[in-house]
Amino acid sequence: MSTVSFASDYQEGAQPYILERMASTNFLKMPGYGTDEICASARERIRKACACADADVHFLVGGTQTNATVLDALLAAHEGVIAADTGHISVHEAGAIEAGGHKVITLPHRLGKVSATQLGDYCDTFFSDLNRDHMVAPGVVYVSQPTEYGTLYSLSELESIRDVCCKHGLRLYVDGARLAYALGSAQNDVGLPDLARLCDAFYIGGTKCGALFGEAVVIPDPQLTPHFFTLTKQHGALLAKGWLLGIQFDELFAEDRYLSLGKPAVEAANRIRAVLVQSGHRLAFVSPTNQVFVVLKDAAAQCLGNMVEYSFWERYDKDHIVIRLATSWATTDEQVNQLLSAFSQL
Amino acid sequence: MSTVSFASDYQEGAQPYILERMASTNFLKMPGYGTDEICASARERIRKACACADADVHFLVGGTQTNATVLDALLAAHEGVIAADTGHISVHEAGAIEAGGHKVITLPHRLGKVSATQLGDYCDTFFSDLNRDHMVAPGVVYVSQPTEYGTLYSLSELESIRDVCCKHGLRLYVDGARLAYALGSAQNDVGLPDLARLCDAFYIGGTKCGALFGEAVVIPDPQLTPHFFTLTKQHGALLAKGWLLGIQFDELFAEDRYLSLGKPAVEAANRIRAVLVQSGHRLAFVSPTNQVFVVLKDAAAQCLGNMVEYSFWERYDKDHIVIRLATSWATTDEQVNQLLSAFSQL
Amino acid sequence: MSTVSFASDYQEGAQPYILERMASTNFLKMPGYGTDEICASARERIRKACACADADVHFLVGGTQTNATVLDALLAAHEGVIAADTGHISVHEAGAIEAGGHKVITLPHRLGKVSATQLGDYCDTFFSDLNRDHMVAPGVVYVSQPTEYGTLYSLSELESIRDVCCKHGLRLYVDGARLAYALGSAQNDVGLPDLARLCDAFYIGGTKCGALFGEAVVIPDPQLTPHFFTLTKQHGALLAKGWLLGIQFDELFAEDRYLSLGKPAVEAANRIRAVLVQSGHRLAFVSPTNQVFVVLKDAAAQCLGNMVEYSFWERYDKDHIVIRLATSWATTDEQVNQLLSAFSQL
Amino acid sequence: MSTVSFASDYQEGAQPYILERMASTNFLKMPGYGTDEICASARERIRKACACADADVHFLVGGTQTNATVLDALLAAHEGVIAADTGHISVHEAGAIEAGGHKVITLPHRLGKVSATQLGDYCDTFFSDLNRDHMVAPGVVYVSQPTEYGTLYSLSELESIRDVCCKHGLRLYVDGARLAYALGSAQNDVGLPDLARLCDAFYIGGTKCGALFGEAVVIPDPQLTPHFFTLTKQHGALLAKGWLLGIQFDELFAEDRYLSLGKPAVEAANRIRAVLVQSGHRLAFVSPTNQVFVVLKDAAAQCLGNMVEYSFWERYDKDHIVIRLATSWATTDEQVNQLLSAFSQL
Repeated sequence: MSTVSFASDYQEGAQPYILERMASTNFLKMPGYGTDEICASARERIRKACACADADVHFLVGGTQTNATVLDALLAAHEGVIAADTGHISVHEAGAIEAGGHKVITLPHRLGKVSATQLGDYCDTFFSDLNRDHMVAPGVVYVSQPTEYGTLYSLSELESIRDVCCKHGLRLYVDGARLAYALGSAQNDVGLPDLARLCDAFYIGGTKCGALFGEAVVIPDPQLTPHFFTLTKQHGALLAKGWLLGIQFDELFAEDRYLSLGKPAVEAANRIRAVLVQSGHRLAFVSPTNQVFVVLKDAAAQCLGNMVEYSFWERYDKDHIVIRLATSWATTDEQVNQLLSAFSQL
Repeated sequence: MSTVSFASDYQEGAQPYILERMASTNFLKMPGYGTDEICASARERIRKACACADADVHFLVGGTQTNATVLDALLAAHEGVIAADTGHISVHEAGAIEAGGHKVITLPHRLGKVSATQLGDYCDTFFSDLNRDHMVAPGVVYVSQPTEYGTLYSLSELESIRDVCCKHGLRLYVDGARLAYALGSAQNDVGLPDLARLCDAFYIGGTKCGALFGEAVVIPDPQLTPHFFTLTKQHGALLAKGWLLGIQFDELFAEDRYLSLGKPAVEAANRIRAVLVQSGHRLAFVSPTNQVFVVLKDAAAQCLGNMVEYSFWERYDKDHIVIRLATSWATTDEQVNQLLSAFSQL
Repeated sequence: MSTVSFASDYQEGAQPYILERMASTNFLKMPGYGTDEICASARERIRKACACADADVHFLVGGTQTNATVLDALLAAHEGVIAADTGHISVHEAGAIEAGGHKVITLPHRLGKVSATQLGDYCDTFFSDLNRDHMVAPGVVYVSQPTEYGTLYSLSELESIRDVCCKHGLRLYVDGARLAYALGSAQNDVGLPDLARLCDAFYIGGTKCGALFGEAVVIPDPQLTPHFFTLTKQHGALLAKGWLLGIQFDELFAEDRYLSLGKPAVEAANRIRAVLVQSGHRLAFVSPTNQVFVVLKDAAAQCLGNMVEYSFWERYDKDHIVIRLATSWATTDEQVNQLLSAFSQL
Repeated sequence: MSTVSFASDYQEGAQPYILERMASTNFLKMPGYGTDEICASARERIRKACACADADVHFLVGGTQTNATVLDALLAAHEGVIAADTGHISVHEAGAIEAGGHKVITLPHRLGKVSATQLGDYCDTFFSDLNRDHMVAPGVVYVSQPTEYGTLYSLSELESIRDVCCKHGLRLYVDGARLAYALGSAQNDVGLPDLARLCDAFYIGGTKCGALFGEAVVIPDPQLTPHFFTLTKQHGALLAKGWLLGIQFDELFAEDRYLSLGKPAVEAANRIRAVLVQSGHRLAFVSPTNQVFVVLKDAAAQCLGNMVEYSFWERYDKDHIVIRLATSWATTDEQVNQLLSAFSQL
């Protein structure tokens, strides 16, 4: 194909060093289910990067199963999870959370985010409602970092959300499917140790961030969910050859690669944003990570589609749509040039 | 380590040609979720091997999630699944089927198998019970081929089971986690086209049969479960980079490799069985595939454990246990020699 | 107590003729689970009132269990139910629908209602979304008649909703917890035969409409859910002494009492509305059934609370709240007078 | 009908004093959901009868919903409930426990009972199994008192079971659907205070023991399940007019009637057993409560069926069946005479 694709950030395999590690260990006999030494090493590297020596670290394969398993572990039967109405668990997980028995309580998003004020108001109203015992109690707050809109929670925003959680006895869970692109953004002020300090659980995304697959769940307090392993198995989320997940994360956290591997992708996105704005294109909204949201006339979008694969985001008005362009760890300068060249021909 | 391991058949990575394909395609931009051309090719190769041109073929990551997703698709809310009490779904899936809302109805096994007679009797009794509408109706029969005991259903046995299913309106589902070791056994007379003809659904195991991971679900009648894709997503069983699963099966079914790749493993197991019997060891039972079950005195077992990794199967009597030795596609002659040498030192 | 209560419409036992029937049949030996002759008679009377000779009629005990059981019967595993965000299943059933594995998809209400236009737009958007297979498919539309706001769907509104359902392959389910107060309203033009013609399932409320308890589920097409009895049992919704439910409905439908028993309650509510408006009180909104929603200053509400039990509905602004007053089949003229007298003292 | 029925112990309405209380309170305005004063009184009477001043007492409508709700409250997500394979939850609740996500782990019964030894062995094996984290952990022991076979656990048996539970961290739950017939048996040595001392939860059956319906759940430690009310609602098991349940139990526990109301039924059963044995009939087994199990030739059973309604229990051998005759609080001497007369004509 002569087209170039910015359709998503999971279109390539993995960082070559991961494939090399897999090849070099292919015939070593390993015990299953994550009980091997590579997983042990990967866990230790993650604990260090999170400055959280006691954390439980579990490796699962994909995002939906991770969200379903973690929320099952964190929620009591009478509780639900609060999320932005744009949250991945609300929209694009085929009802996995509800299939596990829990309501997703949605609050209206602002650029993919919910605020501590919204959460506090919701909880205040809920816990003062005379009928609250007939209703689903909020048990967990779910946020994505970065969000589905590519936006970031600031450290002070997350701290405020944590305060609301503490006040009302809720747990805080951060979905880090694209966490490397938060860590790689100049605007980000939330580090892994902050997440470990503020969250009851969070996951470090591998699938979209340089790995073949895999998400690393970090549970700072190891007492919180003592049966997480069995729940992982019950959710069908336990990989038999667990060391394959260990390899992904042992490599991604060797020399803390994960902390910087999203940076080139964010810089590429920044360059795209800058050039598009300069050339008179309109961004639907500004986000500081690896996703670029552009408003295009229908005809221009169609024309662009002949040269570039992008993803449709939403209709903007009757003549315009918003498209999403995603860069990734694998994006090359040449691909960006090709994209910008295509835009220049619209 | 100087020990040799026969602890399980999923201790290595994958057939080298799979790793090579992954490396060579690593930077091709692929669409997600199994919509790519490699998956399409793999599906087509599987359909041909099954002589079932219209079959739906879905790629999932692991066995437990596959069983949970398929049974969710096949069972109505008021139904349960019948399995041998030794069936993997009954014992070693952490309650995944029940977590999905369905009872596993167990029948006593004979060497890991249930018979058409048992199933027929159960159904006759159930459907003539005046209280049947207060009970869980049998909806699916689950069998493993080979079974957890390494035994095989013959074609005539499966046909009889199919007849019982037809008579009572049940569906038949075969768990083929180790299917390559059935296909590689000289005693086997059930081919993939037979499974496609007799089953409502079955899966072709990859994880234990040469792949890094992956199980290929075959649903011969594509009308049966039109929303299987969404159910896969809901169960957290949809791999984002679906082409990785496509690669596993496209390679395993290139030139029908899958049909023969289990053969060396079965032959190695046959050799182990023969030598052990000759040297006076007792087999707990004879099974014609890649698992060997040996009765050992406690002291002998402990001694062997210093030289060989095996898995504990069950206590035989107060002085003996049964151990399981598993060969695999990756087992070498040298490893078998090392094992037999260890036995000779007991 | 010298206070009078309009706090809800389920504060009394039952119509005296129901208690009498229970007393007179108390020592007749009955078979269980609704297989008795009184249930048979009640079913037949309901079928006649619905002009639907073939309908399946099932008697359950309460509203939440009825909604959970019916929706479990109507929804496939990958589907959810669309409801107004004020719908009882969305808010006040403690997550019963999600506990059964299904998402409640909410649309913004207008006076408790959703429109065919909203539903059509939602379905059009959903079924044209490229990611729809990653999302919960709408499978059932849930509406309440009357709604939680006491409002009514007109026949033409329901017919339009039905058309949307037909167009997109959805089923229509009507929660008739307060159906007698719809049937008793002069503004209502939807009869039981209309419901039977338009719905895939609906229930005729007993608990709030003259019975001790009990809801009668009507499924016009008896082929639709052949295992409803077992699902009822599985949901814990099958009353052992089923004839007690039969008695409620056999009496309520003797001489079609149900069709008119809500009328005095609606007339009492009309009288309250008229007097309050005349005396300068503000109604939060006008609803044509047995619930009256009044805006009161905080101080007035507190004062009224010393004389009348009402239920808090919602905060209106910082100085006012909305209260709800519910009349019922048991409301007397004297109670209405007492209420109006209390208002006149504010 | 000229036949007499011993088909079950829930064929009549309620003790007349219950109907009278319902009639006399019919038009009192009550608050809903068990928040009324009658429920408060009933709870207090039950606490006194159990010598357990702090117990949580909840009123639910029927047995299956009670079992499902209590087990949901007592079990963690990774746990299942152990029961005899004849336990009601194993067989006759249409999979309600599994629909709630939990496995019922069955042990072979002896006359409806499981022993502390069996339970201890199961737990010892489970907790020493190297694969236990891939399996459903036992979390609750479920026993019925009396059992489905009409047999009784002795105090020392229950204490031994409690010891096993304590040793392995399991909770103990007793299903008392027919508890009045245990309390009314001369052979019983387990009182309500014993149950309150030994169980984590148990329920006092109303439906089969003189009430129209209703089961009273007793949770001796009120800290154990703080959200039981919401779970009850979520399970559809919360009766809107909760005071109706309060009336059942306030009356049944007025002057501790419940402790003796089963006695005449057990005495009637004893008389039936004695006469049948004297007249040469064979009892399938002896049980000391209100159920009588008789072995009859097929022809005799058919002949008896023309005179007496009984329930089929199971096939005994190819020529005989076992029938069950159930007496109840409502059984009269005349009915017993009629039954015995019928037997004398076989």
